[in-house]
Amino acid sequence: MTSQLSKKGEAWSARFSEPMSELVKRYTASVFFDKRLGLFDIEGSLAHADMLATQGIISAQDLADIQRGLTQIRGEIERGEFEWSLDLEDVHLNIEARLTHLIGDAGKRLHTGRSRNDQVATDIRLWLRSEIDRIGELLAQLRGSLLDLAERNAATILPGFTHLQVAQPVTFGHHLLAYVEMFSRDSERMADCRKRTNRLPLGAAALAGTSYPIDRERVAKTLGFDEVCRNSLDAVSDRDFAIEFCAAAALIMTHVSRFSEELVLWMSPRVGFIDIADRFCTGSSIMPQKKNPDVPELARGKTGRVNGHLMALLTLMKGQPLAYNKDNQEDKEPLFDTVDTVADTLRIFAEMVAGITVKPEAMRNAALQGFSTATDLADYLVKKGLPFRDAHEAVAHAVRVCADRGIDLADLTVAELQAFSPLVATDVFDYLTLEGSVASRNHIGGTAPDQVTQAIAAARAKLKQ
Amino acid sequence: MTSQLSKKGEAWSARFSEPMSELVKRYTASVFFDKRLGLFDIEGSLAHADMLATQGIISAQDLADIQRGLTQIRGEIERGEFEWSLDLEDVHLNIEARLTHLIGDAGKRLHTGRSRNDQVATDIRLWLRSEIDRIGELLAQLRGSLLDLAERNAATILPGFTHLQVAQPVTFGHHLLAYVEMFSRDSERMADCRKRTNRLPLGAAALAGTSYPIDRERVAKTLGFDEVCRNSLDAVSDRDFAIEFCAAAALIMTHVSRFSEELVLWMSPRVGFIDIADRFCTGSSIMPQKKNPDVPELARGKTGRVNGHLMALLTLMKGQPLAYNKDNQEDKEPLFDTVDTVADTLRIFAEMVAGITVKPEAMRNAALQGFSTATDLADYLVKKGLPFRDAHEAVAHAVRVCADRGIDLADLTVAELQAFSPLVATDVFDYLTLEGSVASRNHIGGTAPDQVTQAIAAARAKLKQ
Amino acid sequence: MTSQLSKKGEAWSARFSEPMSELVKRYTASVFFDKRLGLFDIEGSLAHADMLATQGIISAQDLADIQRGLTQIRGEIERGEFEWSLDLEDVHLNIEARLTHLIGDAGKRLHTGRSRNDQVATDIRLWLRSEIDRIGELLAQLRGSLLDLAERNAATILPGFTHLQVAQPVTFGHHLLAYVEMFSRDSERMADCRKRTNRLPLGAAALAGTSYPIDRERVAKTLGFDEVCRNSLDAVSDRDFAIEFCAAAALIMTHVSRFSEELVLWMSPRVGFIDIADRFCTGSSIMPQKKNPDVPELARGKTGRVNGHLMALLTLMKGQPLAYNKDNQEDKEPLFDTVDTVADTLRIFAEMVAGITVKPEAMRNAALQGFSTATDLADYLVKKGLPFRDAHEAVAHAVRVCADRGIDLADLTVAELQAFSPLVATDVFDYLTLEGSVASRNHIGGTAPDQVTQAIAAARAKLKQ
Amino acid sequence: MTSQLSKKGEAWSARFSEPMSELVKRYTASVFFDKRLGLFDIEGSLAHADMLATQGIISAQDLADIQRGLTQIRGEIERGEFEWSLDLEDVHLNIEARLTHLIGDAGKRLHTGRSRNDQVATDIRLWLRSEIDRIGELLAQLRGSLLDLAERNAATILPGFTHLQVAQPVTFGHHLLAYVEMFSRDSERMADCRKRTNRLPLGAAALAGTSYPIDRERVAKTLGFDEVCRNSLDAVSDRDFAIEFCAAAALIMTHVSRFSEELVLWMSPRVGFIDIADRFCTGSSIMPQKKNPDVPELARGKTGRVNGHLMALLTLMKGQPLAYNKDNQEDKEPLFDTVDTVADTLRIFAEMVAGITVKPEAMRNAALQGFSTATDLADYLVKKGLPFRDAHEAVAHAVRVCADRGIDLADLTVAELQAFSPLVATDVFDYLTLEGSVASRNHIGGTAPDQVTQAIAAARAKLKQ
Repeated sequence: MTSQLSKKGEAWSARFSEPMSELVKRYTASVFFDKRLGLFDIEGSLAHADMLATQGIISAQDLADIQRGLTQIRGEIERGEFEWSLDLEDVHLNIEARLTHLIGDAGKRLHTGRSRNDQVATDIRLWLRSEIDRIGELLAQLRGSLLDLAERNAATILPGFTHLQVAQPVTFGHHLLAYVEMFSRDSERMADCRKRTNRLPLGAAALAGTSYPIDRERVAKTLGFDEVCRNSLDAVSDRDFAIEFCAAAALIMTHVSRFSEELVLWMSPRVGFIDIADRFCTGSSIMPQKKNPDVPELARGKTGRVNGHLMALLTLMKGQPLAYNKDNQEDKEPLFDTVDTVADTLRIFAEMVAGITVKPEAMRNAALQGFSTATDLADYLVKKGLPFRDAHEAVAHAVRVCADRGIDLADLTVAELQAFSPLVATDVFDYLTLEGSVASRNHIGGTAPDQVTQAIAAARAKLKQ
Repeated sequence: MTSQLSKKGEAWSARFSEPMSELVKRYTASVFFDKRLGLFDIEGSLAHADMLATQGIISAQDLADIQRGLTQIRGEIERGEFEWSLDLEDVHLNIEARLTHLIGDAGKRLHTGRSRNDQVATDIRLWLRSEIDRIGELLAQLRGSLLDLAERNAATILPGFTHLQVAQPVTFGHHLLAYVEMFSRDSERMADCRKRTNRLPLGAAALAGTSYPIDRERVAKTLGFDEVCRNSLDAVSDRDFAIEFCAAAALIMTHVSRFSEELVLWMSPRVGFIDIADRFCTGSSIMPQKKNPDVPELARGKTGRVNGHLMALLTLMKGQPLAYNKDNQEDKEPLFDTVDTVADTLRIFAEMVAGITVKPEAMRNAALQGFSTATDLADYLVKKGLPFRDAHEAVAHAVRVCADRGIDLADLTVAELQAFSPLVATDVFDYLTLEGSVASRNHIGGTAPDQVTQAIAAARAKLKQ
Repeated sequence: MTSQLSKKGEAWSARFSEPMSELVKRYTASVFFDKRLGLFDIEGSLAHADMLATQGIISAQDLADIQRGLTQIRGEIERGEFEWSLDLEDVHLNIEARLTHLIGDAGKRLHTGRSRNDQVATDIRLWLRSEIDRIGELLAQLRGSLLDLAERNAATILPGFTHLQVAQPVTFGHHLLAYVEMFSRDSERMADCRKRTNRLPLGAAALAGTSYPIDRERVAKTLGFDEVCRNSLDAVSDRDFAIEFCAAAALIMTHVSRFSEELVLWMSPRVGFIDIADRFCTGSSIMPQKKNPDVPELARGKTGRVNGHLMALLTLMKGQPLAYNKDNQEDKEPLFDTVDTVADTLRIFAEMVAGITVKPEAMRNAALQGFSTATDLADYLVKKGLPFRDAHEAVAHAVRVCADRGIDLADLTVAELQAFSPLVATDVFDYLTLEGSVASRNHIGGTAPDQVTQAIAAARAKLKQ
Repeated sequence: MTSQLSKKGEAWSARFSEPMSELVKRYTASVFFDKRLGLFDIEGSLAHADMLATQGIISAQDLADIQRGLTQIRGEIERGEFEWSLDLEDVHLNIEARLTHLIGDAGKRLHTGRSRNDQVATDIRLWLRSEIDRIGELLAQLRGSLLDLAERNAATILPGFTHLQVAQPVTFGHHLLAYVEMFSRDSERMADCRKRTNRLPLGAAALAGTSYPIDRERVAKTLGFDEVCRNSLDAVSDRDFAIEFCAAAALIMTHVSRFSEELVLWMSPRVGFIDIADRFCTGSSIMPQKKNPDVPELARGKTGRVNGHLMALLTLMKGQPLAYNKDNQEDKEPLFDTVDTVADTLRIFAEMVAGITVKPEAMRNAALQGFSTATDLADYLVKKGLPFRDAHEAVAHAVRVCADRGIDLADLTVAELQAFSPLVATDVFDYLTLEGSVASRNHIGGTAPDQVTQAIAAARAKLKQ
């Protein structure tokens, strides 16, 4: 290997009078974490070399050498044999130095017409694009698990809560479909973010483009990019796609945190709506009886992690002048950890949902508590001609009496109910049952079992798109 | 007006044994800020009433009364005559109470088949949709201003910086186009966010749907929504669209902060690349000579505000169980302030950019400093046959000698240059001029004046779409 | 009033060639919100004028005029009669212009030896100091309310949860004392933050100090500051105290959010451990039976608000060069809203805690569920000689058998228990009661009623300090 | 080793019917990162065992065995020989399993009277306490470096900026002292945070305390804790100290970011106030002339990281019910990375400041530009009798004329100056020099060289405390 790169241990280049201090080397090196981009770096270099040769900027022999060398390096990386060197600072210089060691001068020609600034931007976009696709699949798997569980519980009744107070009876299938909707929007956002990620910065060189007759469209096509970044200064300094991804990831984790909160609550003995399979739980080092819902709790906690990474990236980019600044090196670790957190969480949730045992009796008992059909009684009175606001007030009186007596609305006699409104007749009890209540909410988005079944079918169809 | 609403000062409903404390009333009331949604609340109510009548749930006479009453209230709000009451808690109850006061029982029938939960979700989506459209226009105006300035400076040369060190010469037009790209991506994100905002929650009622035979598709069509929310529990508790909007807004402000940083720097006397019109600046209460770039500084500071609001909303939604909880009332103020901050900032920047005076001589002088054409010399050597890495090293040697002697590369003689590489010939000076350097970067996204002109035309065309 | 200030409508000063645009005036003005600092601005000005006169920088007559004028303005502000003008930008120029209008040239001499940069920093510290003291009192009130409730429930048993699973029985008084500890740490942090807030920036002038022979120690003494800021550049640009305050406030709200989460849970019908007085709750516009714990839910939501303001201020200060930049004007609104949110929340919680009804029977029933004394059985076996890990395992076996049979450990016979460990004797049942369990945890910080009583006394003593 | 721990690969305890899935094991394990706490875990266990023996809960022989075993394990960890096992979940179970393997039953008795909940809380406080002390030393080192540089530049004049516009001349020593103040406040905050970190949770057991006759005061004394946590439920779930630490760390990084911004600016060729030693800089892979200030840029970027971790922890704790939940496991990685980031950054800055070359001529030239003594002229007129506001206006006129003519105030003749105010006499030029200007700001906190020298001495004295 020749001069510049091998001398990194002495001084950055001939322009420098002393070598980098060891402390600085460690502080500024990124190879510890950006080696993760290795295979994408090679993919980008192959496309770049192919274009350089096509444009006559390097020779066919150089191209052949580069392809041979990079193929060998790819194998070394895949087999875990590649030796990453701190002295060589980052993934790019490590690979380039190895390439030059393997194939000589042709390796030194690979960097013609590009810079590490556009190179790293290309690598990270290639990598993120593949991760977005993986997360898209995991979101689909989780939605699939939820749909399976929803289908088995299309008619299972539990209390719907607002303010954690019993509101109205709903079906458990309907409840689960709310999460299907959330994760479905997450999929949309991933797709939107992919559009803005899948643009090629290569060709921007350090910041201004290059004086070589490059063909950026060719490179874009080779690498599967939808478009070429239209401005070189923007191309090397843009990290919007990383921030947009983390914002979308924060929403995924927000949805996970809400679902987790409910799972933990539903498993609490006073509620007892579900059980989570033992393989997703742990015990206690001191309390022999404990079975703890670790996975949802940990996932809820990881929401903070992703929110934090989003904030880290926004802080990072605030007030940065054009074009590339070293600050940007800090984009990777938050992004890497966000991807890992989201992917691991989605995978484990897809499995865990399949391991949920539903306890319909506990759900039903809970729905019978808390006057969940009070709204149905008010609606009954409206249908008999009372304005809604007056009906609401009449039922509120009835509820208060029942609460004081410790009974439910359905426990009152017709005569007693008529004390609150003379419009009550014997047919009132049809409206005070849980089944009657849920079945009556039979419109798009409503909780009626029929609607749930239709919604599941529609969501399944969407999954297959 | 009858019972329920008028009694709010006494007790929430007959179910309550004591009235709300004054302290609690103030703490929980939202009418101070959600009255901003007034006209959208009326728009939503009109569509709801029209549907109720069409479905036969209320009579044609009721509908006519409601339309008459709401039209009068709209006028009162527009003229600033409407009296908002703290006792009536929020925008919805204020309007409904006034309506019932004006038209009697028909007013009490308006709330049939809906709840405040789906009503407020509808209002806020209607409002945000209109603000997204307004911000879209403001982004277009700002891009227009930038394009005008870029066009006048398509060939004006200044140093391109990386790490705030002189990197390579670029054209000022090219530099400004980087921001056009950023704000163009912001427009795309606004459009994507609009899709997910423009879905109708109305019909979800409190959380489970309603037992009335409602027609949600009709309401959606009347109000211009693209779709109906497919799950009632999700519909009343979803605030993804608000978070997604704030995340997109945080990126807009991030771009503004970067541009502001540069404007402040460019106006600093040691740099002196531009001047900002006096009407955008202020002086000092103590230093008579001061002219301060207040607008970009304040805008840079406002980035924090929007980042903070995004974090507020993410924290808000973390771990919330289904369906609606009172926590959600806290969604409005951050969202309102984000909209105001972004809209005000974009408007003022569109004007301020038009008031920028460029100082081409200062820019050119700066570009002549700092060896900005060193890369061109390296590329020259590569074209003569030297591998890039060796060329880079040869030029680094030359730069170090020049730096020590306090001269530029172009000040060396051919003979002196040949000491670093025998490949140098007399044509080398063609490559060491600023004009030669920028003109040579002549590919898509490059800084050559020709490319800038083409990019401006393309960006203009995109604006007109 | 003379030249400079009255001409603001025309141009900032003679150095400017055009007046500020109306749009810019609104964008940059702070008088809308910083008028809140009015009385503190006057207090600071009085101390400054007193020092100027003592040092012979202004005359005794000037001082008398300034005192008279400022006293009048204070009255106008207190009575709501002061007319704040947007044209005069901020609280300082508004008051100074009014003063000059009232007393002539002496008013124009007040600004001698200071700048708005050190003036606003002084105002905001004076204001925040008073708010820190108020919040300290509110924290003490809330702790007092919690102690009263804890005292009444020193021996009330409920299940202690970890992972929302029943862990071990605890006393409700003990549980409440956990929050007393949290709010006690909050008080400590407020006191620590006060130290760093209570330092005088005045005298730093614009950024470098002043050429007048000022006496900063005198001003500090007059205004009750502990110290003088030791560096003028730092003094005008330091906002650490605001950030530190918001961080401490975020912890207060974090504690509030945890308590709120529990209150909401405890009020949920499946749990039913407490009731919150009706005056702190609201109902539903559609569901007549609802009584919602609005206050804790809203408080939990407001956590996001304060976290967001903290992030706003950190973003604001990131990367700001010395000394004062206009960005800093953005420090006020987040700080103001943080103070209001925390103070309102603490006040309402102190009242609400006093309005909590405890339901001991529901608590006790819940504690009897979930094997809450399993650890006691393990400890019993250890005391009989079994290593802890083996005892843990023996009890785990017993729990599993009971869980399968749907019974509690205390329902097993001695013989059955001996199947899991031959060390079990008839005295085992003394250890399986709830009372025995809590009474046995009788050390500092333990849940035994005796310890709770002592802890309450200690916390009361600390409150009186 | 016996049952419970060795069976982790099969099932958590006898209470579980199936083993943890591999996916879950990885997702929930913390041993990858919490092994960092290993030595502190041993320190805590030794103190716990000593107390158990003193209280007669375990035998003297057990204690001796435990001490021998833990000493051996400490050696294994220090030598990197300890084999951490994923199956054993966390640092605590790994060490306990190894101990039991080494010494048998005595190892199983170590966990008597404690739980992992109070154990991990103790470990993390012990660890953080030592890191706070280390950071305190690093802050002192950095302040020392800044003081050395300030001393050499107590009289070096550069322009003081506000709004990045030239404001008034200041001395470079004075400017550096602003950062000494900031880092000094950071030291205070570290000390305050240490108080609340240095409290002992051990003895809280799982959540309620323990039935063994433990002596918490003894353990606290052995481990050097100032106090014992007064409530067991709070003790196991409190993470305030971690959040408070991260908030203080975020302020450190905010100060670093401001200093970095200035370093980058000062090294930019148009400013050129300083040079940073080559060993702290890197070059470019494409531009041979580049020398980039990587360290300050990277440090500025790392501000985001720490802000993000703070937000992660606040999000984590929001709304968590008592007592311990698995969410809390997520406290470690943000805290660990915050400590590492702050410590590495402070160490490298202390070194880098010592490697700064000051360029006094460039500083002086910049101070002569931009009318930096305009305030001195206004003050001169005030001393001659003009009210400050009128003097300000007169100088503003003079500045505008000079700006139009491209000259400085000192370039005007007395006669020309008199056109703006007849009070000007020939002594005016004494006030328009840079030296005169800085020397005149001679009060506590002012920029006069004498004050700077005194301030340095005072700061040195404080360092030695």
